[in-house]
Amino acid sequence: MNGDDRAAVLTPPPDAVVPPPPTGRLERLAVEALRRRLGDLPVHVRLWNGHTLHLGTDPVAVVTLKSRRMLLDLVRNPDLQFGEGFMAGEIDVEGDLVALVEAVFRAGAARQSATRRPVTHSNPVRAARDNVHHHYDLGNDFYRLWLDEQMLYTCAYFPSPEATLEAAQIAKMDLVCRKLRLSPGERVVEAGCGWGAFALHMARHYGVTVKAVNLSHEQIRYARERARTEGLEARVTFIEDDYRALCDSADVFVSIGMLEHVGPGDYQELGRVIRRTLGEDQGRGLLHFIGRSRPGPLHPWTVKRIFPGAYPPTLGEVYEGVLEPHDYAVLDVENLRVHYAQTLDHWRRRYLASRETVRRMFDPCFERAWLLYLSGAQASFLSGALQLFQVVFAPAGSKAIPWRRDAWTEASWGGAHGQV
Amino acid sequence: MNGDDRAAVLTPPPDAVVPPPPTGRLERLAVEALRRRLGDLPVHVRLWNGHTLHLGTDPVAVVTLKSRRMLLDLVRNPDLQFGEGFMAGEIDVEGDLVALVEAVFRAGAARQSATRRPVTHSNPVRAARDNVHHHYDLGNDFYRLWLDEQMLYTCAYFPSPEATLEAAQIAKMDLVCRKLRLSPGERVVEAGCGWGAFALHMARHYGVTVKAVNLSHEQIRYARERARTEGLEARVTFIEDDYRALCDSADVFVSIGMLEHVGPGDYQELGRVIRRTLGEDQGRGLLHFIGRSRPGPLHPWTVKRIFPGAYPPTLGEVYEGVLEPHDYAVLDVENLRVHYAQTLDHWRRRYLASRETVRRMFDPCFERAWLLYLSGAQASFLSGALQLFQVVFAPAGSKAIPWRRDAWTEASWGGAHGQV
Repeated sequence: MNGDDRAAVLTPPPDAVVPPPPTGRLERLAVEALRRRLGDLPVHVRLWNGHTLHLGTDPVAVVTLKSRRMLLDLVRNPDLQFGEGFMAGEIDVEGDLVALVEAVFRAGAARQSATRRPVTHSNPVRAARDNVHHHYDLGNDFYRLWLDEQMLYTCAYFPSPEATLEAAQIAKMDLVCRKLRLSPGERVVEAGCGWGAFALHMARHYGVTVKAVNLSHEQIRYARERARTEGLEARVTFIEDDYRALCDSADVFVSIGMLEHVGPGDYQELGRVIRRTLGEDQGRGLLHFIGRSRPGPLHPWTVKRIFPGAYPPTLGEVYEGVLEPHDYAVLDVENLRVHYAQTLDHWRRRYLASRETVRRMFDPCFERAWLLYLSGAQASFLSGALQLFQVVFAPAGSKAIPWRRDAWTEASWGGAHGQV
Repeated sequence: MNGDDRAAVLTPPPDAVVPPPPTGRLERLAVEALRRRLGDLPVHVRLWNGHTLHLGTDPVAVVTLKSRRMLLDLVRNPDLQFGEGFMAGEIDVEGDLVALVEAVFRAGAARQSATRRPVTHSNPVRAARDNVHHHYDLGNDFYRLWLDEQMLYTCAYFPSPEATLEAAQIAKMDLVCRKLRLSPGERVVEAGCGWGAFALHMARHYGVTVKAVNLSHEQIRYARERARTEGLEARVTFIEDDYRALCDSADVFVSIGMLEHVGPGDYQELGRVIRRTLGEDQGRGLLHFIGRSRPGPLHPWTVKRIFPGAYPPTLGEVYEGVLEPHDYAVLDVENLRVHYAQTLDHWRRRYLASRETVRRMFDPCFERAWLLYLSGAQASFLSGALQLFQVVFAPAGSKAIPWRRDAWTEASWGGAHGQV
């Protein structure tokens, strides 16, 4: 259960006895509030006594609230309490969890106010370290269960929807390398390097030297070991530190999946780091990040349980905070939202196949929390609550910008690239 | 003269008598101020008496100030008075005018403060009409002298730097059509349609029906005549009106080169027009506009003499004003700055070849003003003072977005496209 099979569970046997609705005043008010909130979402809600609220038609899931308390909590703070209840096993979902969350997000987007709320939260170095540790130091064995073989934990690029996750992660790395027009001998700084796959890929296939930073001890250890094994130690240096500590100069600045953890209050600082790295009026860079079509915080449950300190910015927030102060011009933006939904579909399916193992490694609450996170993230990209942007930039008056961008994508089908 | 030949005029004969610097106190102060302002720009400045200030090495031009008054005016307000003096014939430039202005802009960018100055100016309908009339109703005969044969007055897309202007304008139209994935039978609204070439191109080659608005009487008359002659009247409707009057619904909203004339104070209104046109949660659009890497007004002389009411926005200003309030997500951004510099090089060369004709049609001041405008615009795109953005957008959760964007550029070499 809690998988994505819209199973027959949705239809009760025709001769079933229909349990009555709750009769207490508080419960009745809560049920009414829940009905108003959910509107005609394609979902049935089953209460602890078996009574079922039939909302929209063609339900994608049945949500069971296992206690009166859960109903009241959910009505009080649905954004947070759905996740809390699911994690604790107080809420069960039968049917298609991704489709359920997608429907909730799509309905929410329609209601959401369009007013702009400036967000300024920062992540000082110590907080940044704690945030990273919380998520990325869960153990490489855990991530190996459901990531691709090279352990890339960011949006892949699928040449076609049928591509394997492995091929799509390689295609993503090549796409970024081509957008950056890397050439042998150039120096690259990578901020937030995960388990090091991209830094090693750049060095091996594009002949560059790379300095890569990451705050995660587990990831850096793994990346260094890989560099040693693969004989790339001389060309790739992995540094366990905050991006703010970067002080090497380079031809290229690249960051894949770190900006979400920076926080808008530190964008100007990130801009200064980029400028210090590239020098005046030269170089180019690429920022790959989860963002939004309009400003707003990350989902509160995700911040609480999965990504403390994370914030998905709008393109405007990134330009104003990071790029404009140093007169960097945007050369190119590509939105890979559908590719992240596809990436998450792969991760989620692999994860589902390893649920028992995860339960043994951690506990049932952790296992359910991560299933909800992966499903919710997939739903976020499907519904457009989240977007994935790749932004290429260079100094506003750069004389070294490409005439056409065709070459970036032409060869990005992955596969045949040589060794440099 | 005033062309782009870095001629021998830059070197005086070796036995020339060197005229002395001016001796009046005011003149001496003004010369000092000019030296400070220009720094080591690669330019020589010749005063009315023949005395020459040698600034940087390898000068690209000699600027002659023909009177004491011109020197004082220039020092008082260089941004405005250089253009005023050039237009009036009080300033002459021998050498490469484009390279001179590019050097000035590059030096200025280095000095410019990076503080964000919010700009909110609006163009109410009557002002918008006057602004458009000022520029676009100068007579089709005038524009025919130096635009391509289809009279496209926006940035072209050069498949290669050697492409002709004619081929590049067709390639631009195809590039936009492919980014919009037009298919036969769809309805397109075009805001700001110039002489109608793009509307007619979409109808003829992509089988769509088009409603196109423009405030310029001369342009609309020309466009309607072309539609009649080419038998496309039933599929292309040209409307002489403000974009705010649009109330048709459509599958696609496109605007090439109008946003610069809208003014940030009216971006929200433009966003509402787009939303009204496309309806809720559907459709897609493209905005093609001259912009900036950081906020700032258009050059004051250009606003005064060439484009009253114009403002080149940053991408952030466009997102926040036009797109975010309606939850449109950016799917793609392409920066065509180098293509606009190339387009302007073609226009400027054609214009130079028709200077005598322009002088007869108007007067020498007008002719010089437009030479400076075309040269200055080319310099702006070369130096990065201006950028050219194409932004593709769709509702944040759109289910009809392409898997890959390769197809947009593949066929954009222009040339072989069939009739639909």
